[in-house]
Amino acid sequence: MAVNSIRDKVAVIGMGCTRFGEHWDKSADDLLIEAAYEAFADAGIEPSDVDAAWLGTQLSGFAGISLSGPLKTNFIPVTRVENYCATGSDAFRNACYAVASGAYDIVLAIGVEKLKDSGYSGLSNLRPVGDGTFPDITAPASFSFLAPAYFKKYGLDPAQGKEVLAKIAYKNHYNGSLNPKAQYQRIVSLEDIVQSPIVSEPLGVMDCSGVSDGAAAAIIVRSEDAHKYTKNPMFVKALSIAAGPGDGQLQQNFDFTSIRENAYAAASAYKQAGITNPRKEIDLAEVHDCFTPTELIIYEDLGFSERGQGWKDVLNGSFELTGDLPVNPDGGLKSFGHPIGASGLRMLYELFLQFKGDAGGRQLNNPKIGLTHNLGGTPWQCVSFISVVGKFLS
Amino acid sequence: MAVNSIRDKVAVIGMGCTRFGEHWDKSADDLLIEAAYEAFADAGIEPSDVDAAWLGTQLSGFAGISLSGPLKTNFIPVTRVENYCATGSDAFRNACYAVASGAYDIVLAIGVEKLKDSGYSGLSNLRPVGDGTFPDITAPASFSFLAPAYFKKYGLDPAQGKEVLAKIAYKNHYNGSLNPKAQYQRIVSLEDIVQSPIVSEPLGVMDCSGVSDGAAAAIIVRSEDAHKYTKNPMFVKALSIAAGPGDGQLQQNFDFTSIRENAYAAASAYKQAGITNPRKEIDLAEVHDCFTPTELIIYEDLGFSERGQGWKDVLNGSFELTGDLPVNPDGGLKSFGHPIGASGLRMLYELFLQFKGDAGGRQLNNPKIGLTHNLGGTPWQCVSFISVVGKFLS
Repeated sequence: MAVNSIRDKVAVIGMGCTRFGEHWDKSADDLLIEAAYEAFADAGIEPSDVDAAWLGTQLSGFAGISLSGPLKTNFIPVTRVENYCATGSDAFRNACYAVASGAYDIVLAIGVEKLKDSGYSGLSNLRPVGDGTFPDITAPASFSFLAPAYFKKYGLDPAQGKEVLAKIAYKNHYNGSLNPKAQYQRIVSLEDIVQSPIVSEPLGVMDCSGVSDGAAAAIIVRSEDAHKYTKNPMFVKALSIAAGPGDGQLQQNFDFTSIRENAYAAASAYKQAGITNPRKEIDLAEVHDCFTPTELIIYEDLGFSERGQGWKDVLNGSFELTGDLPVNPDGGLKSFGHPIGASGLRMLYELFLQFKGDAGGRQLNNPKIGLTHNLGGTPWQCVSFISVVGKFLS
Repeated sequence: MAVNSIRDKVAVIGMGCTRFGEHWDKSADDLLIEAAYEAFADAGIEPSDVDAAWLGTQLSGFAGISLSGPLKTNFIPVTRVENYCATGSDAFRNACYAVASGAYDIVLAIGVEKLKDSGYSGLSNLRPVGDGTFPDITAPASFSFLAPAYFKKYGLDPAQGKEVLAKIAYKNHYNGSLNPKAQYQRIVSLEDIVQSPIVSEPLGVMDCSGVSDGAAAAIIVRSEDAHKYTKNPMFVKALSIAAGPGDGQLQQNFDFTSIRENAYAAASAYKQAGITNPRKEIDLAEVHDCFTPTELIIYEDLGFSERGQGWKDVLNGSFELTGDLPVNPDGGLKSFGHPIGASGLRMLYELFLQFKGDAGGRQLNNPKIGLTHNLGGTPWQCVSFISVVGKFLS
């Protein structure tokens, strides 16, 4: 299998992001328009400058028409991409390839979901539940397996384990309290997190991300054109996505302390970006904290922590805003909810703000290399996406 | 708006296609495996040689997992693309951009639909019917408007008009009678077509394409690598897709004798491919004959016939296998049905066979340039896709 790269071939020149939350007064179309026009203004382009677009949505629309209609685009190409929880990220990835190929000069990648209208119910409409494709257990249940497996393997008693998970939730809510676009903008006490009602043992409500609506958008050009538009382009160093064959649960040695797709996606991304020591070389990361144990496992799958050391790095604050590798500085899925098509682009939006120095109370000290990560599916079969982006050409 | 091109940058080196039909004894997974392994064998590659894949499906799966599971791929990237009836074509288009960008060396584009399991019902599950996004009339009804509008504008009386439409259906069924992969492999008499029960006036059952299951697949590499794999690569000259803003039905001058998205897609494709006289320069075309008047309108929208002349070209046999520009030589949607994600790749499969001289009783005399066309949506708002492919580098 070849691992090539479009490293430094394309750049983001403008982004937009709605506030995430329960937008009862807005449609998916409204959210798309808000995010797109913020991105157009940010990039200093007119809507008519866009040559082609990629729409990421899982439940809030069908086909390119779901974007060309609300934006009233002038018969340009629009592709809908869907890839579970990596939907928005994969829309961005395909848009980047199209620009890198030379087919287009300026493109829009945008993601949206109106989960408060659809719920997650659409997911089970298209294939019968129980045919093996889509798990017939809930998302919290499937990810809850990670926690006791990790605790047992690395010798944490249940109370210690709950404390580690609570610190992850606390960190992300703290970061979200500094973010005017987050769904939840408040600090939640460790006690409230640990005591929260159980959803799927040992996960409480506060170990789970919420349900929200939102949209986020990026304008992408080839790197050599980027400085025509902005002083602060964000260059794409690596794009990877791994889709699992789904044989994990059939294997005796699948122990629920690692998600194989994460490791494959990370290996490919680091090779593309030339990263050999992710903990040192990456300055900040936005990862898929759908549930607190997911974030814990991700630290290790992505090489931020050695195996079995992630929980110690949590307790010593490594991934906090003041740590050596801040993770989810914007508040993560924990503070934003997870409107599926929007999440990946929301993560990139935070990196774009951080690189520009526009992250307000969350601003880090001059970060230069960032990572985004999504995963969709279950721990034993998922798609795992990673982008590495940077402030400068290398 | 820039119209750039990846002309001659990528090539198809192998393809596969299931028989289309009512596959009650097969799942979507079975069809994917059959099409993919035919393509692997045709290209002379191992499944493990594939670097990344694009899956086109509208109703028969979610996310990349719907392909990585059945094919048991080794954690490679898999993207699901959905774009109404251009779903399979747009999966192919995105796969081509990724190869052209240099990100991958060998990729798979594959499309599938098990319509006999799902029906079209999934379409209305995700957005409420009547919100303007998805029309609250049936597909035959929305396309039926084309026929009387065309007849009136160009002075055909209803009987003449029905005869023209019937000749299109007759041609496609005749071609399908020569194709072992078609759903329907029989000649249907003009009388049976004209007399078929009305579905939506003036369209009878035999003016409509059927409902079927199927899958089709392509292996794509950069053009400079193509001859390592095959003596007969098929080179991509142009890829275009136009998504409409949906304001057609609001305009007084929208007269239902042209589909604007077709014209935009054609203009872009011809510019990319350097085609100035499509009727002369294109040797064969596979177009989206969802209903007979759609094919009639397409002749004119794509410049195969002058405005108002398409019906005369039908009557004089221009688009038959023996005509100067054979259209739907494989039998079209009329003979294959329209398993949504599969159709665009099924069209490319016919061109691939024709270029290799492997089209059996349908074989044309050494065709060199071909076109595929899909449209999805309604005459007043759709996505329209066009590819131009060729036997040789230009």
